[in-house]
Amino acid sequence: MPTSEQDFLAAIDRHFPNQAEGILLGRGDDCAILDMQGGALGPLCVSTDLFVEGAHFRRSYFSPADIGHKALAAAASDLAAMGAAPIACALSLVLPPDGPGGVDDAFLDEMLAGMAALSNRLGLPLAGGDLSRGPALILDLCVFGRPGPSGTLLRRGTVRPGDELVLVGEAGLARAGLLALEATGRAACEAMPAATAAHLRPEPRLDDGQLLAGLPGVRALMDVSDGLARDLPRLVGLESGLGAELKLFEHMLHPEALAFFCAQGHGPVEAFMLGGEDYSLLAGVTPEALSGVLLALPVARHIGTVSAAPGLRVNGADFTRAGFDHFG
Amino acid sequence: MPTSEQDFLAAIDRHFPNQAEGILLGRGDDCAILDMQGGALGPLCVSTDLFVEGAHFRRSYFSPADIGHKALAAAASDLAAMGAAPIACALSLVLPPDGPGGVDDAFLDEMLAGMAALSNRLGLPLAGGDLSRGPALILDLCVFGRPGPSGTLLRRGTVRPGDELVLVGEAGLARAGLLALEATGRAACEAMPAATAAHLRPEPRLDDGQLLAGLPGVRALMDVSDGLARDLPRLVGLESGLGAELKLFEHMLHPEALAFFCAQGHGPVEAFMLGGEDYSLLAGVTPEALSGVLLALPVARHIGTVSAAPGLRVNGADFTRAGFDHFG
Repeated sequence: MPTSEQDFLAAIDRHFPNQAEGILLGRGDDCAILDMQGGALGPLCVSTDLFVEGAHFRRSYFSPADIGHKALAAAASDLAAMGAAPIACALSLVLPPDGPGGVDDAFLDEMLAGMAALSNRLGLPLAGGDLSRGPALILDLCVFGRPGPSGTLLRRGTVRPGDELVLVGEAGLARAGLLALEATGRAACEAMPAATAAHLRPEPRLDDGQLLAGLPGVRALMDVSDGLARDLPRLVGLESGLGAELKLFEHMLHPEALAFFCAQGHGPVEAFMLGGEDYSLLAGVTPEALSGVLLALPVARHIGTVSAAPGLRVNGADFTRAGFDHFG
Repeated sequence: MPTSEQDFLAAIDRHFPNQAEGILLGRGDDCAILDMQGGALGPLCVSTDLFVEGAHFRRSYFSPADIGHKALAAAASDLAAMGAAPIACALSLVLPPDGPGGVDDAFLDEMLAGMAALSNRLGLPLAGGDLSRGPALILDLCVFGRPGPSGTLLRRGTVRPGDELVLVGEAGLARAGLLALEATGRAACEAMPAATAAHLRPEPRLDDGQLLAGLPGVRALMDVSDGLARDLPRLVGLESGLGAELKLFEHMLHPEALAFFCAQGHGPVEAFMLGGEDYSLLAGVTPEALSGVLLALPVARHIGTVSAAPGLRVNGADFTRAGFDHFG
């Protein structure tokens, strides 16, 4: 089998053309964009996101409601990553049979309640789906969106050297939560409430994404699901020859993550760069637009600049460690 | 866990409202319809379809290309079932790890090739998707469509007493293929080429669906995936109080299916009514429109009439056996 997501995507590209009539934007960004030819809603953003037991979550420390919440949150974050407004979602659900490892009615009810609460809050009503038995609990969420009030959808790979990099949300916090939950189970929720919540109950930044899409000078946007080390090269464009020069400070790491990673002997820069699943937004903005973006979105932080040379540099040194590969 | 798909759908309905702004048609039909507010393409049809190893297919007699083909064919049939024209699809793929039960590169390549061939032929380019490791091979296909040249999308539950029922395609043939493949494996392909092909390589009837959507007097349409006994009540409307009166003849069953089921001691009516996964189309048409439909679509067959009384009657007798529940 392919050893990385990259190998798999190459296999997909060998078999399926990535341009076709009716598709404005094909594979490779947070969402695909379908051409709706002039409707009042504009084009349609679609994205699917798998949430697989054993690969993405464990029932030993995810409550049923956490599972329902996070499956939808991760998918909805792909809409946020385009600056899109939500329309609807669809759920394909694989349920294991009864017995050990099975799912009973109460579990299913809580899981759906957790998903429904987020669905209502985000304005992502459930329009359809499918159901099957299978060997594990698997949720596949498909989300549909459209341009927000600004009419703009933001993509990756559209930055230029000198553009400023802005992060909206945490980096490394969810990974601290994951590692603590793996080490001590649900007890970690008391010791590290913010970090565990970041892993169990991430909040997709749909409002922030639409706000960014409406600001002048915001040239590119994505969500950070695999960590900055892996996702930053995707924002600046994998074939662009561009890179990024970051300036990171210890205080940029959430105190819970700082304490956790320091106790494990990891530096804050590594923790910041390698953390996955924070579902923060990463934007590339023109130098002139930077102050306006930081004023409009106080939670946003300036973390660096797009450089003309490829590769990542952090605080003046090359950063070559890879981020989080869900598939690897 | 819920013991039937019906229980599960009831749980979904408890948690998620089925009407929302932007959704023209919610859960319960072959596709959901999203309101695109006046675009040249009209509204958007979306549907997702799970294809799960062990539940929907076995690798012992599905070739990798068969798996890729059928996963997409079953999903595309939901577009045919609305009379929709294809736009694009998305694939969420769960791959088992290496070793026994794993999937190697050659397998993946053939599977994608089988899917790509159908994708090209149908005009359903792959616009996106997701990938994860997991305990079994699972494909979840999301398909997107739009009204065809007629501008019409056809639904279920919109027939009236006296409407005529028309079947486009086989009934019972794919189930004969499934049972033969389960009994003798791939060797069944030589003995029963049509039946095994119906199970392994079904053809979604996208052209027939669009043609029906353009004919006068066609009031309702669906695809038959769970067998007529289960699907006919869905076409006439689960809460309508209506039923159907069918007239079936031995010659309506494909010769391979007739021979197979007779050898097993099953009557042709049972075989015709209980077979699943034929992906035929079932239409309800006004009495005046019947001859026009049969002329325009020579493969279509008149199988009965919508009745004012609930329940199914076949050749004058009540038919109460349930069809195929993928989930049960």
